[in-house]
Amino acid sequence: MSFSLREARREDAGDLLRLIRDLARYEEAEEQVETDEDQLAATLFDEGATAHAIVAEREGRVVALAIYFFNYSTWQGRNGLYLEDLFVEPQQRGLGIGKALLARLAAIAVERDCGRFEWSVLDWNTPAIDFYESLDAKPQSEWVRYRLQGKALKALADTA
Amino acid sequence: MSFSLREARREDAGDLLRLIRDLARYEEAEEQVETDEDQLAATLFDEGATAHAIVAEREGRVVALAIYFFNYSTWQGRNGLYLEDLFVEPQQRGLGIGKALLARLAAIAVERDCGRFEWSVLDWNTPAIDFYESLDAKPQSEWVRYRLQGKALKALADTA
Repeated sequence: MSFSLREARREDAGDLLRLIRDLARYEEAEEQVETDEDQLAATLFDEGATAHAIVAEREGRVVALAIYFFNYSTWQGRNGLYLEDLFVEPQQRGLGIGKALLARLAAIAVERDCGRFEWSVLDWNTPAIDFYESLDAKPQSEWVRYRLQGKALKALADTA
Repeated sequence: MSFSLREARREDAGDLLRLIRDLARYEEAEEQVETDEDQLAATLFDEGATAHAIVAEREGRVVALAIYFFNYSTWQGRNGLYLEDLFVEPQQRGLGIGKALLARLAAIAVERDCGRFEWSVLDWNTPAIDFYESLDAKPQSEWVRYRLQGKALKALADTA
């Protein structure tokens, strides 16, 4: 039943991509996965990378991942830790891997003097929401994220 | 009527704090501003800082700010640019300063090969929402952000 956590390394890129595809299927977004091993390796492991990954290993296999970066609170004048994605292989659930990944990230946040640990969840993902509320995490329901990408992003950039 | 944009410098910390307090008042959150000049200077300008600021100057005064950092899209395997806060002094509105700041950030996003430019807005801030939709930015309404802080964050960290 035991597992261990460690920082992801460049040679994990293939496993990261496999888990990312599994997660995308779960979020009904598989067709949105546009990345590949080389791009993941470059953006997570090249010098100056601002996003980071932790993996869980069990019986010699990578079975879970967490991808995070440091955000910022203007009110606090401090960084926060933002968990972009967390995924545990379905057949590896119930062992406490997800909770252990969250705890590791919370410890990194405290160690780095972050004021907050944040993440987002799809509003229909009730099992995840119940779990987050059991940790006493609070929904920031009055905030709506806006996204500009593709042509709209280039059009705005062209006015600079 | 003219203004100019530039990267913020350490000596802008006092102006940044003043504008942050003004923004907090507008968002009815003034009591939540816990930072000071030294902390802003350290977290925005020390080596290794991951958050960045752009300011607008008009008639020799700093009249607007934008604070941003790089987030990450797992699906894209690319960074995004996330605008944490944007504020223009009320008496300086209508000159295009906010739009110019957004355009500058969009240009940084394109230059840095970011797949997305994102920010969040309070759901009651209709003038801002109308402006963002005029840029063809899309609301990510099915996502809810969760936040862990204070004792709940430390409690989770202690289980790591």
